[in-house]
Amino acid sequence: MNITAFIGSSRADSNSEQLADYVLEDIRHQKIDLKKIAIEPINDLRHDDNGFQLVDDDYDQIIHAFLTSDIVVFATPIYWYSMSGIMKNMIDRLSQAIRDERFPQLKEKLQTTEAIVLAVGGDEPYIKGLPMIQQFQYIFDFLKMPFSSYIIGEGNKPGEIAHDEQALMQASILNKQLKARIYPI
Amino acid sequence: MNITAFIGSSRADSNSEQLADYVLEDIRHQKIDLKKIAIEPINDLRHDDNGFQLVDDDYDQIIHAFLTSDIVVFATPIYWYSMSGIMKNMIDRLSQAIRDERFPQLKEKLQTTEAIVLAVGGDEPYIKGLPMIQQFQYIFDFLKMPFSSYIIGEGNKPGEIAHDEQALMQASILNKQLKARIYPI
Amino acid sequence: MNITAFIGSSRADSNSEQLADYVLEDIRHQKIDLKKIAIEPINDLRHDDNGFQLVDDDYDQIIHAFLTSDIVVFATPIYWYSMSGIMKNMIDRLSQAIRDERFPQLKEKLQTTEAIVLAVGGDEPYIKGLPMIQQFQYIFDFLKMPFSSYIIGEGNKPGEIAHDEQALMQASILNKQLKARIYPI
Amino acid sequence: MNITAFIGSSRADSNSEQLADYVLEDIRHQKIDLKKIAIEPINDLRHDDNGFQLVDDDYDQIIHAFLTSDIVVFATPIYWYSMSGIMKNMIDRLSQAIRDERFPQLKEKLQTTEAIVLAVGGDEPYIKGLPMIQQFQYIFDFLKMPFSSYIIGEGNKPGEIAHDEQALMQASILNKQLKARIYPI
Repeated sequence: MNITAFIGSSRADSNSEQLADYVLEDIRHQKIDLKKIAIEPINDLRHDDNGFQLVDDDYDQIIHAFLTSDIVVFATPIYWYSMSGIMKNMIDRLSQAIRDERFPQLKEKLQTTEAIVLAVGGDEPYIKGLPMIQQFQYIFDFLKMPFSSYIIGEGNKPGEIAHDEQALMQASILNKQLKARIYPI
Repeated sequence: MNITAFIGSSRADSNSEQLADYVLEDIRHQKIDLKKIAIEPINDLRHDDNGFQLVDDDYDQIIHAFLTSDIVVFATPIYWYSMSGIMKNMIDRLSQAIRDERFPQLKEKLQTTEAIVLAVGGDEPYIKGLPMIQQFQYIFDFLKMPFSSYIIGEGNKPGEIAHDEQALMQASILNKQLKARIYPI
Repeated sequence: MNITAFIGSSRADSNSEQLADYVLEDIRHQKIDLKKIAIEPINDLRHDDNGFQLVDDDYDQIIHAFLTSDIVVFATPIYWYSMSGIMKNMIDRLSQAIRDERFPQLKEKLQTTEAIVLAVGGDEPYIKGLPMIQQFQYIFDFLKMPFSSYIIGEGNKPGEIAHDEQALMQASILNKQLKARIYPI
Repeated sequence: MNITAFIGSSRADSNSEQLADYVLEDIRHQKIDLKKIAIEPINDLRHDDNGFQLVDDDYDQIIHAFLTSDIVVFATPIYWYSMSGIMKNMIDRLSQAIRDERFPQLKEKLQTTEAIVLAVGGDEPYIKGLPMIQQFQYIFDFLKMPFSSYIIGEGNKPGEIAHDEQALMQASILNKQLKARIYPI
């Protein structure tokens, strides 16, 4: 089973990345750190006569990850009550990707790609992070991707996620469930 | 009264920009087209020993607009059920801006800066755009900015907003209300 | 075209009823004032061996209205950020109604029964009423009822809805649209 | 420490009650089973010349519980994506209770009464139960009650909550946290 974790944080020592590490502990996976690759904002040419133009950045890595993963993890800080701008730009570009003639199989592939959301915020994330969860649901509904679970954690300063007992426990359960699927007895 | 409209669209012939034009018809205002200026994603150094570093891009234009406007309009397409990535990057950078020693007055100034949200989407925006409205509410609550009104419109292809009778009517009422405040009899 | 307005208010001089009156002005319709009829809370016997038992109250009026209406209007005050308890009890009983052997056609009938929601609240209804709108969407999705539109109005004391210019204008547009469908030229 | 659990279910063998039992295991508390007491819907006389009239039902039990509890637990099934009608009627009547001259201390007392929400639903409760959580937040904000935590569980048929590993684990953690506060070492 192939797993990719998209890391949406804009800093080192990210709580959301740490939460992803808990969930994926001892599970083989690749990690794509969005702040370290170049992703241009979408230039929305859907309705232009010539359609979308090839963009010279690293987005093909994202598409490749979607095409080769059974599970994708969206690990994002809750910045201003929604996913980080760099993760949002990655999502926005899906509008182009699912129309990209180089990847005709992407749209169908996504329908069997399981999505997990891990989000950490500092300002009442259990409440104020809920609209973001609803948006991920709408996104996955649109793409027909199965949205299997999410975990919201609380943390602000680096490392604080380690004090959120509920989130750690949920991460531990999810970790066990994933392992049971990957390495069945 | 100074008004700035932030345009979050990623294309020419934007429905959300058009909605802003209806709301601000015959009202003096400046427009900042986010796709035409350079705004870097936030590099979150809040917890770094040296704090945030000066970024070499056009964000000072945004700060200047906040500092000099009585009303700011956030006009955004509903991309993937939330604001566009370029507008999100602009919002994310507020975390740095409100800590920027060059602008010590920003935080207090925002508390009297009225916010208006105009959003246009193509996939049931009246329902699926609601989490985004809640997020704007949280953002403005955090900044203590008065959130005076929002309009959600429906449109996908260029110009379609012109067929959303409800949105046009709301824009027309808001336009009249703004004029009555700016040019009282 | 048959139209039923369910009035969920718990007082005379209801703002939500008044909003329904604006929307349905000069349009033939029946009104069911929920506070004037007896509706028991659901006794959830779905999983009981004997199933649901006949309830001796006025709920059959509700079922009859659903069975004979092309459009149903849910007019409710926003009490404590959601529909009134008496309207909620009416909704809850749908779990029994759609399993009631006396009305085998109800479930299918609902799939062509258009729903409109009119809601009036006093505490930032344009924001704090949004979760309720999302819930109505989930309800109508479950029942496969088309959810054609909603209007949120602001008002607290009797008659205050008359000062909500945006809501009145939306009501007026909806009234015109309904008339155009009912009395086409 | 006094704890009251309000049980909002409309059936025996309630999953939401069972979840409350897990959370409160080995902790002294009283339980008020809303379906077994009489609570009239609110008759909204706020704006009537004579104000609210005394209602002849069991609501004083609810008020008494609020007045004497340090923690109140709202355990509700997710019926049609929000709290049950009988719990909603209980909430609606707070509008009268906080104005009831017999209980002048209620409003202030609530500001130190901690609220916990336990909700169990059968149709994607982790997503579709979120608007209800937001509404509880608005309710507690209005009353200035601290909203300390919530647990959403999945279950439909009697007893199914016992299979929701995440919810059980969250209940277990909350149980431990409560015990640590009640019986400190």
